Amino acid sequence: MILVNGAATNCVPAMDRGLAYGDGVFRTLRVRKGRMQSWPRHFRKLVHDCLALGLPGPEEASLWEELARALHGTQECVAKIIVTRGSGERGYAPERVPRPTRIVMTGPQPQYPEEYFRSGIKARLCTTRLSAQPRLAGIKHLNRLENVLARAEWDDSSVAEGLMLDQQLQVVGGTMTSLFIVEEEGLVAPDLVNCGVDGVTRERVFEAAARQGLPCRIGRLTLDRVLEAREVFLGNSVIGIWPVRECAGKVWRPGRETVRIQLRLDEEGD
Amino acid sequence: MILVNGAATNCVPAMDRGLAYGDGVFRTLRVRKGRMQSWPRHFRKLVHDCLALGLPGPEEASLWEELARALHGTQECVAKIIVTRGSGERGYAPERVPRPTRIVMTGPQPQYPEEYFRSGIKARLCTTRLSAQPRLAGIKHLNRLENVLARAEWDDSSVAEGLMLDQQLQVVGGTMTSLFIVEEEGLVAPDLVNCGVDGVTRERVFEAAARQGLPCRIGRLTLDRVLEAREVFLGNSVIGIWPVRECAGKVWRPGRETVRIQLRLDEEGD
Repeated sequence: MILVNGAATNCVPAMDRGLAYGDGVFRTLRVRKGRMQSWPRHFRKLVHDCLALGLPGPEEASLWEELARALHGTQECVAKIIVTRGSGERGYAPERVPRPTRIVMTGPQPQYPEEYFRSGIKARLCTTRLSAQPRLAGIKHLNRLENVLARAEWDDSSVAEGLMLDQQLQVVGGTMTSLFIVEEEGLVAPDLVNCGVDGVTRERVFEAAARQGLPCRIGRLTLDRVLEAREVFLGNSVIGIWPVRECAGKVWRPGRETVRIQLRLDEEGD
Repeated sequence: MILVNGAATNCVPAMDRGLAYGDGVFRTLRVRKGRMQSWPRHFRKLVHDCLALGLPGPEEASLWEELARALHGTQECVAKIIVTRGSGERGYAPERVPRPTRIVMTGPQPQYPEEYFRSGIKARLCTTRLSAQPRLAGIKHLNRLENVLARAEWDDSSVAEGLMLDQQLQVVGGTMTSLFIVEEEGLVAPDLVNCGVDGVTRERVFEAAARQGLPCRIGRLTLDRVLEAREVFLGNSVIGIWPVRECAGKVWRPGRETVRIQLRLDEEGD
């Protein structure tokens, strides 16, 4: 079911600025056993990202109520929330008082092979580079053409994800996932000061790692550094954590810390 | 009137990739005396930009027919065409065979003061920088958050446009216009290899300048170079050409070459 500003419809106005300019933000979250996983975190990030674009954040109670209506008793699915700056006159200037469009939709949980979770995935290196835009870095906004171009680079079903580098050749993440590496000194996640998405899974992985006594740092990740890491894994709210088993000729087995973080995230589900 | 894939509706499917990812392109053109100005150029650029994103270009005859229907006899207006990659499953991977969404809409021609055209405008310098993305540079795609952020920087009605610089501090254009300067050696327009939109007006200005014997070049435009130019002007398909009268403390009068190009573009209307 799809709700647009609370009304059951599949229809977004053609003049919506989300369509015209990608002027909005989104979140994707997993519903398990009828429960929206990590809801408080997703809501907090959604509001944060709205404010970063100068949009008022949605009201939590009504958004929650809309999600519950859209779920309509579904136990296992993916829910997506989009908030745009709403409809406006033609032209880039935002309305002084924006009237955001709020879209809530649900869809099937994608079925990935169980071995992605257990044995890890094969990842490729994308040639599409992420551009540097500090004003938008970290925000899960609707300007995602770079991710689309990167994902369009391969059509080989044995490759589950692609790693994206920025123009300084630092590895920033997967096309749809956050990247983590484990080195002798602990967990390292890429610096998102210029690009990338600062997602809920990143936050949850940091907390899980810290709780299992693994020091966590943000760092600049050259490709060599990633390929030399003990463990490499990718994650997002829908898939959870996938160990990387193969990338650019390098092969890993799912590592101890990765498995512990996988289990912890899976147990907690918050 | 709004037509979506030929049907009179204001409704774009909520799952459209244009909304989800800004996965599409657009064009804005002016209708004068019932005639779509520079139609062959706009259509050619539209197809070019579609192909750059791996989208099949629309069929000219049906797009033309839809525009005529949307105009519905209106003599003076602005027409906008959006082509997206259409609806798809959740996820960045494009469908193997895209079924694009085609949106045609019309709106009123914005009324700008006549003095903008005659005496020129006051422009400001935006602090939002354009990011470098060679894969998307020049394309009029739907990822326009940078333009939105830049346009949101000011709310002073005496300022008609803002100039945007890239991260190397080269001036690339206005938030909604192409930039041109006239130096002793001729006309210079900014290099769009990393960012910016390569629009129809840019093409028309180059041709008009060449026909009046003005050498035309592409160059890297530092802010100093722009401010020291003899003449500076901005243009797009909707507004035509606006001389810049004031920017960053520098003042100009509409220059001879600018006025000649203005007149030529206004006469030709192609």
